[in-house]
Amino acid sequence: MELIISEKEYGRRIEAVKKVLGRRRLDALYLTNATSIFYLTGYSFISTERPAALVIPLDGKTTFMGPLLEKDHVPLKTRLIEEVKTYLDYPGEKHPIEHFAEFLKEMGLTKKRIGIDNKAGAAGMWGYQGPPITRKLPEAKFVDMADLVPKMRLVKSPAEVALIRESAKWANLAVALLQEYTTEGAWDVEVALAASLDASSIMKKTLGVDFEPLRNIFPVSAGFRGQIGEISAIPHAIGTKRKIKSGDVVIAEAGVEIGGYSCELERTMIVGKPSAKQKRYFETMTKAQEAAIQKIKEGVECSEVDKASSAVFKKAGLSHLVKHHTGHGLGLEGHEPPWLDMGNKEKLKAGMVVSCEPGIYEVGFAGFRHSDTVLVTKEGCELITYYPREIEQLTIT
Amino acid sequence: MELIISEKEYGRRIEAVKKVLGRRRLDALYLTNATSIFYLTGYSFISTERPAALVIPLDGKTTFMGPLLEKDHVPLKTRLIEEVKTYLDYPGEKHPIEHFAEFLKEMGLTKKRIGIDNKAGAAGMWGYQGPPITRKLPEAKFVDMADLVPKMRLVKSPAEVALIRESAKWANLAVALLQEYTTEGAWDVEVALAASLDASSIMKKTLGVDFEPLRNIFPVSAGFRGQIGEISAIPHAIGTKRKIKSGDVVIAEAGVEIGGYSCELERTMIVGKPSAKQKRYFETMTKAQEAAIQKIKEGVECSEVDKASSAVFKKAGLSHLVKHHTGHGLGLEGHEPPWLDMGNKEKLKAGMVVSCEPGIYEVGFAGFRHSDTVLVTKEGCELITYYPREIEQLTIT
Repeated sequence: MELIISEKEYGRRIEAVKKVLGRRRLDALYLTNATSIFYLTGYSFISTERPAALVIPLDGKTTFMGPLLEKDHVPLKTRLIEEVKTYLDYPGEKHPIEHFAEFLKEMGLTKKRIGIDNKAGAAGMWGYQGPPITRKLPEAKFVDMADLVPKMRLVKSPAEVALIRESAKWANLAVALLQEYTTEGAWDVEVALAASLDASSIMKKTLGVDFEPLRNIFPVSAGFRGQIGEISAIPHAIGTKRKIKSGDVVIAEAGVEIGGYSCELERTMIVGKPSAKQKRYFETMTKAQEAAIQKIKEGVECSEVDKASSAVFKKAGLSHLVKHHTGHGLGLEGHEPPWLDMGNKEKLKAGMVVSCEPGIYEVGFAGFRHSDTVLVTKEGCELITYYPREIEQLTIT
Repeated sequence: MELIISEKEYGRRIEAVKKVLGRRRLDALYLTNATSIFYLTGYSFISTERPAALVIPLDGKTTFMGPLLEKDHVPLKTRLIEEVKTYLDYPGEKHPIEHFAEFLKEMGLTKKRIGIDNKAGAAGMWGYQGPPITRKLPEAKFVDMADLVPKMRLVKSPAEVALIRESAKWANLAVALLQEYTTEGAWDVEVALAASLDASSIMKKTLGVDFEPLRNIFPVSAGFRGQIGEISAIPHAIGTKRKIKSGDVVIAEAGVEIGGYSCELERTMIVGKPSAKQKRYFETMTKAQEAAIQKIKEGVECSEVDKASSAVFKKAGLSHLVKHHTGHGLGLEGHEPPWLDMGNKEKLKAGMVVSCEPGIYEVGFAGFRHSDTVLVTKEGCELITYYPREIEQLTIT
């Protein structure tokens, strides 16, 4: 079963980069962003203090420059990278950026025009220090091209959408297991790990021997992130000491990596019989989500979608409980453009994939948010995630 | 049971920052790095496209500036942050960086000297775009202070060492479970999640109702990261489709977050009776690690430690299989300075905590690396991790 982007499609992405290089009279593109590098080559690595970069010359071999420990890793994962140039380690007897300057010299780029996504020349993680590559190649002309790959990623190809659809199936299983395993007295971390374990096991059995996550250590990431009871009022809670008890609102969520891509699926659930107030907040939230979904269509301004959910909260007198906008693009990163935000004049295009997740949060009480993954189409939109959304289906008794 | 850094110690860290500000004639420090913010305040948040920063004025309230969704989160987690200033969302009708400029104005910092860890004024994750804060406050003088907090973090306090010691206990349990659960035919992801689940459950029962991870969604992260059989020759493998079989070398590892801190513990294990070659490589690796550990002591150059392990590999004729240096600092991040690297002239200080993990890797065969967490002392060093290191103890039959 083919659960990755084909070599052919990666090849087309690199060709598209080269077309832009030609148009912009650039001789090469220098990328330090690991997501951009994966998007163009299918090669994923752990970005650390050790500098790593992909160089795509207009004429010449697509080259990965990085630490020696990645040398044998590259050819295992991609054929799109034609050459690997390495240094022993960081900081090294000679600084990696000095090595990079030499590698660029070997590639004949010393006096050329180089598009770059980060003028430091290194991702700058975990205590990295060093002079910028721009200083090491004073005769080269570096041009800011930080936007190039992120823009290419905005509209998803049919193959990308297919991977996100496959991700949605397994996220559905993971959220079903979260719902099944949620019981009074459990710690959300335990429910999360049990659901992640079982969903991963079943996925591997179902998808077959060739399945492996490419970018994440674990294919399934399911859980509550501490959004239990009154902590569910903190949209970006990380954890809680608090165990699940009757009367709690909990927010369950799952992402599943398939070929590097993931959907987003989140559901508000009630443990025990919902109170009148829980029902009112829950139903206002689902109405707001429905209103936003109704708006999503090619050509519509992103701000309009945010305004649609906002109007529902306003009508219900709950505007003061809104803590964030309606959604964001997704695919390779947890969040990515376009932003379904009041202030975003950008227009939706068919093939964009966004989360739709308006929410309300009352301190000391609870938070209410579903998130669905939505494909923008010419006629409107299509929901890629399909877990039940109604309170009756999300009540845990 | 107190498994966090005390408010008093966080307070001392902020005071230490203020002393530096005074000495450098700076009126405030502006930090965008989430690890630095946690180090000074105990407040942890999910860093996204939404700008967030901590501002510590020399005189005035320590202030967190960020998205509205963090507003109620801050006071739940710290009292060191005295004020929270927020914007609705990103990109917003008014860009967050414009809000930040106004917040700094409210704080009387418009024309002041401000130390900053990142001149953009935002961490720049996940598709963030925006003008730098330095452009929005043209009359302020911004001074690069990216090194300040990382330097403070180099030598660990007794309280930090105590948390890393506690982490080592639970990492020991997690690696013991990995060893116990490793069987022929299992996928490493399943063994990893089962060990993480059980270790988390036991930890929570043992440490009590107040225990919660502060920075990670899951307290235990145990597994193999794909380092199974011939894939163990890739030190930064991420995953593998490959199931465990007899004859495999596997590299098991665990980190456990306690109060924001983690140790590092890794063990090379052999599934089935070790071959002569596996034994030779394994024993050379443990000798190299032992030689490096013998060197670690206050006042010793970091390069010396790397040279000690390197000499062992050279003597054994296996230098060509070395793919990385001997180790790195640790505590709050996966890797942090100091680097136990051939090129690092820095001297070790008592209280530094480093990994010691020389390794050898043969493509198509296997990798061999133990990692231990080591505390530098005046007299030498102390091993914080204590899982068995010998091949007899690490053979899975």
